[in-house]
Amino acid sequence: MLKIGPLSFQSRLLLGTGKYPDFSTQKQAVEQSATEILTFSVRRMNIFEKNQPNLLEELNTEKYSLLPNTAGAKTAEEAVQTARLARSSGLCDMIKVEIIGCQKTLLPDPVETLRASEMLLEEGFIVLPYTSDDVVLARRLEELGCHAIMPGASPIGSGQGIINPLNLQWIIEQTSIPVIVDAGIGSPSDAALAMELGADGVLLNTAVSGAKDPVKMAIAMKKAIEAGRLGYEAGRIPKKTYATPSSPTEGLISG
Amino acid sequence: MLKIGPLSFQSRLLLGTGKYPDFSTQKQAVEQSATEILTFSVRRMNIFEKNQPNLLEELNTEKYSLLPNTAGAKTAEEAVQTARLARSSGLCDMIKVEIIGCQKTLLPDPVETLRASEMLLEEGFIVLPYTSDDVVLARRLEELGCHAIMPGASPIGSGQGIINPLNLQWIIEQTSIPVIVDAGIGSPSDAALAMELGADGVLLNTAVSGAKDPVKMAIAMKKAIEAGRLGYEAGRIPKKTYATPSSPTEGLISG
Amino acid sequence: MLKIGPLSFQSRLLLGTGKYPDFSTQKQAVEQSATEILTFSVRRMNIFEKNQPNLLEELNTEKYSLLPNTAGAKTAEEAVQTARLARSSGLCDMIKVEIIGCQKTLLPDPVETLRASEMLLEEGFIVLPYTSDDVVLARRLEELGCHAIMPGASPIGSGQGIINPLNLQWIIEQTSIPVIVDAGIGSPSDAALAMELGADGVLLNTAVSGAKDPVKMAIAMKKAIEAGRLGYEAGRIPKKTYATPSSPTEGLISG
Amino acid sequence: MLKIGPLSFQSRLLLGTGKYPDFSTQKQAVEQSATEILTFSVRRMNIFEKNQPNLLEELNTEKYSLLPNTAGAKTAEEAVQTARLARSSGLCDMIKVEIIGCQKTLLPDPVETLRASEMLLEEGFIVLPYTSDDVVLARRLEELGCHAIMPGASPIGSGQGIINPLNLQWIIEQTSIPVIVDAGIGSPSDAALAMELGADGVLLNTAVSGAKDPVKMAIAMKKAIEAGRLGYEAGRIPKKTYATPSSPTEGLISG
Repeated sequence: MLKIGPLSFQSRLLLGTGKYPDFSTQKQAVEQSATEILTFSVRRMNIFEKNQPNLLEELNTEKYSLLPNTAGAKTAEEAVQTARLARSSGLCDMIKVEIIGCQKTLLPDPVETLRASEMLLEEGFIVLPYTSDDVVLARRLEELGCHAIMPGASPIGSGQGIINPLNLQWIIEQTSIPVIVDAGIGSPSDAALAMELGADGVLLNTAVSGAKDPVKMAIAMKKAIEAGRLGYEAGRIPKKTYATPSSPTEGLISG
Repeated sequence: MLKIGPLSFQSRLLLGTGKYPDFSTQKQAVEQSATEILTFSVRRMNIFEKNQPNLLEELNTEKYSLLPNTAGAKTAEEAVQTARLARSSGLCDMIKVEIIGCQKTLLPDPVETLRASEMLLEEGFIVLPYTSDDVVLARRLEELGCHAIMPGASPIGSGQGIINPLNLQWIIEQTSIPVIVDAGIGSPSDAALAMELGADGVLLNTAVSGAKDPVKMAIAMKKAIEAGRLGYEAGRIPKKTYATPSSPTEGLISG
Repeated sequence: MLKIGPLSFQSRLLLGTGKYPDFSTQKQAVEQSATEILTFSVRRMNIFEKNQPNLLEELNTEKYSLLPNTAGAKTAEEAVQTARLARSSGLCDMIKVEIIGCQKTLLPDPVETLRASEMLLEEGFIVLPYTSDDVVLARRLEELGCHAIMPGASPIGSGQGIINPLNLQWIIEQTSIPVIVDAGIGSPSDAALAMELGADGVLLNTAVSGAKDPVKMAIAMKKAIEAGRLGYEAGRIPKKTYATPSSPTEGLISG
Repeated sequence: MLKIGPLSFQSRLLLGTGKYPDFSTQKQAVEQSATEILTFSVRRMNIFEKNQPNLLEELNTEKYSLLPNTAGAKTAEEAVQTARLARSSGLCDMIKVEIIGCQKTLLPDPVETLRASEMLLEEGFIVLPYTSDDVVLARRLEELGCHAIMPGASPIGSGQGIINPLNLQWIIEQTSIPVIVDAGIGSPSDAALAMELGADGVLLNTAVSGAKDPVKMAIAMKKAIEAGRLGYEAGRIPKKTYATPSSPTEGLISG
C-alpha cells in the first residue's frame, strides 16, 4: 500500500491528465490504469472556474485523489500562489511542487523548490516536490518535512527512462518517505525498473497519453508497475559477469 | 497468441524447471506463472526412466507442452541423440537445440547449432535453436526452416538482461518465425523490455528459481511479459533528447 | 587553453595528490601527466604547518597552481574557514568547494555548496564548487559568479565513469564558465568522453593514484584528455541506428 | 607492438581510405594518424588497373601495409576471387574477409565468412575476418588458423561505439591471435575503450573521414588508441558501487 501523509492507496501509479487525443480516450485510460491519484496543472485547468467545462467533470472525481501541480511557476512565491488556488477549490490538500529552472530541459530549480516546499509545509499542505535525482537535495527535502519526493528519471516527456538508476536507488535507500519516480518514463519496462529499484510509485503522463493506443498503454503500465513491485519484493538474482547453468550438475531438484 | 509450428499458446512465458529450492516451490511457481511450456534438460532428468522419481510427476504434464533441451551436447550428433531420446518418451516433438561452445560463458556454438538444427528438421522435429544475438546467424537458422529462434539476452544465469537491444530488434524485424528471448533475463523489467522490442516470448529459469521468493517472482514475470507485450502493441512514445511538457500551452484537452 | 578566472593553463588535466603508493610515484605521475593544477585536501595536508614534512615539498610548487579543497567541511562556515586557512599560506587564491552531504555516496550538499560559494566569492576567492550533475544547480552556481563548476561524473573514487552524459552535456551547453568534470572517472575512455561532451577539463585522483601503474596511467590520462578535446573540436560523426558503408558506391574519392 | 602473422607494427590504428572529402585531406589524415596499415575495398578501387588514377598513388605505399577487403562479396567464392585479384597486384598478402549478410545492418555472414577464411588460409593468405561479436564464432575462426579477428563494435558507419563490451572482452580473453575492433567506432573515447578492454588494435574509417575535420580527428584517434593501450597496461581501478574518498583519513601519503 502506498501511503502519502494521511492518505493510503492500493495503486502505485499516479496518472497525469494532459495531452490525450480526446476526453473519451482519457477517461478510459484513467479507468483502465486503476490509478487512484490524478495529476494536472492548476494553471492550465478550468477545474476551479465553475462556469467553464473541464475534463475532470468527465471523471468521477470522488473516486480519485487529486494531485494538482504548480507547473508554470518560476519562483516559490508563484508556486505557493498556485497551490493556494488549488486548495481553495476544496478538492485537494496535496500539491506537487513543480518549479522549472530551464525551459529546454524542463528540469527543476532546486533552490526555489526547497523554498516553496518549506512555505507550503508551513501552510499545512501535503507536499510532493518534483526534483532532480540529486541525492542530497532529496535528503534536504525530506528533512523539511515533505510527504514524498518525486525525482525525475529523465527530462519530462523525453521517454528516455531511468538514466541514472544509481542515484535513484540511493534516494530510495536513504529516505523513509515515499519516492515516486516522476518524468521521463517511456515504456512499461522503464516503469517496472523504477519499482524494482524500490520506488513507492511512478507518475506517468506522456508515456500513456502520447502512445498510439493510450488505453492499452494504460493497462500495460498498470501491469508493469505491479510486476516491478512484486519483483522488488521477490528479491531478484544478482547480476553476474559469467554464466551459471540453470541446470545443476548435481542435487535432487534438477531440470 | 504465440504459435510455434502447429502449436498455439496463450502465454508467452516459457519456464525452465531447474534449480528450485524444492518441489513444492517449483510447482507453485509453474502454476502461478501461467506458463504453458516447460523446458528442462533431457540429460539431467529422469523423466524418461520410468523407475525413477522425477519432478514432472509433480506437475500435471497434460497441461503443459514440454520443450526439452539438449544441454550437455557439444556436437550436432550429441544433440540429435539427445533429441531422439526425448522424443522416444512420446511426450514431446519440440526440441530446444542447446550446444554450448564455451564453458565459461555458456555461449552457443553457431556451427554445431546450424548443423544440429538441419539434422533435426530433417527428422521432423519442431526445432527451436538457442543462439547468440548474431543477426545473420538468426537469418540462417530461419532459412533452414527452424520453427522459432531463441537468441540470448546475455549469458545464461547471469541476470544481466538485454545487453544489445539493437541486435535483438533486428533479429525480430527480419524474421517471420517467433523470436523467444532466452538466457540472461534477470528481472521483470528485462522481460518487459524483450517484449517491447517485439519478441514473441521469453524463456526464464534462474530469474525465477533463483529469486528469494520464486513464486512471487513467477507472478511478477507473468505480469511483466503481459505488460511488455501490451506496450509493444500500444506503440510507445519516441525517445527525445529534450523535454516536452505533458501539459500543452494551448488546445482543448488540457491537463 | 583552459582559463579559470585570471589564470590560464595549457593542460586540461587537474590532478589530485592523494593516496599514491609513495612519494616517488606521486612525483613521477604528476610530472608525466603534464598537469598544471594540483588539488589536495587542506585538512589532511601539513602544507600550511611549516614544521611538518609534506608531499608538496617534493614537487616544485612554483610550476603548479594549487587548488586546495575543503573536504571534511559539512557546512558553508566550515568550508569558508578551511579556504581562509589555505589562502593564509600565500600559495593559492583558488578554492574547490567540497561539502559532502552523504558519507556513503560522498555526494555534495547543494544548499551548503551554494552558501559557501557565495561567501567565498564575497571574500575574493577564485571559486570552483564540486557539485552534482543537477543542471539548474549548476546554473545557479554560475549566476553567483563562480569561476568554474565541477560536476561529478559518478561518486568519488567509484570509477564508474559518466553515468549521465545528458546532464553533463546540458551543463556544458548552458554555461559560459569552464566545466571541469570531477569525480568518478575511472579510465582514459571516461576522461576522453568527458572532453568530447565539451568539458573544459577533467579532475582525476584515484583513477591515477589507484592504478596498478600510476605513472603509466598518468600518461594515458594526459593523452586521453588531449584526444577527447581534439575529438570535440574535430566534430564527431552522428550516431545512426543503421549501418552506412564506409566505401561509397559512387563518387570520386573511393576506398 | 602489433603482430599479424609475420608482420609487425608500431601503430595499433588501422585506417580505412574511403569517403574523405578530397585527396589532400585523406593524405593528411593518413599521415597524422601514424597508421601503418591502410584498408580499402578491392572492388571500388582502381589500384589494380594501371591506366586509372587512384588514391593510393597519392600516398607513398611503401610506407604502409595494405589490407584490402572483400566488401561487395556475398559468398565465400566471391570473396576468394576478390582476394586473388588483390594479391595479383603484388602489393599485399593480407586480406580482410568482409562478407555482408544483411544490407540494412551490414552485419557479416558467419557461414560464408568461415568458409572464405578456410579457403583463403589454404591459399596462403594472411587472413583477417570481419565478424560479429559472437564469442564462439571468433573461437572457430581462430581454430581455422586466422591471423587476427576483427569483431564489430556496432554496425559499420553507425558511430554507436561498443554496444556489447562483455562479448568483446571475452573474445579478447579467449584468443591468442590479435583482436582488432572493426566497425562502429565513432569517437576517440570509443577507440580508447576498445583498447582498454584489451584489443590489439582498432580499425577506423567513417569516424575519421566523416568528421568535420578529418585530419584533427585522425590525431585524436591516434592519441586515444595510445591512451587506451596505456590504460590497459597500467591496470585501471575497479568499478565500485559506493564512493571512496581520494583523501585517506590516515596514512603517510595524504592529499
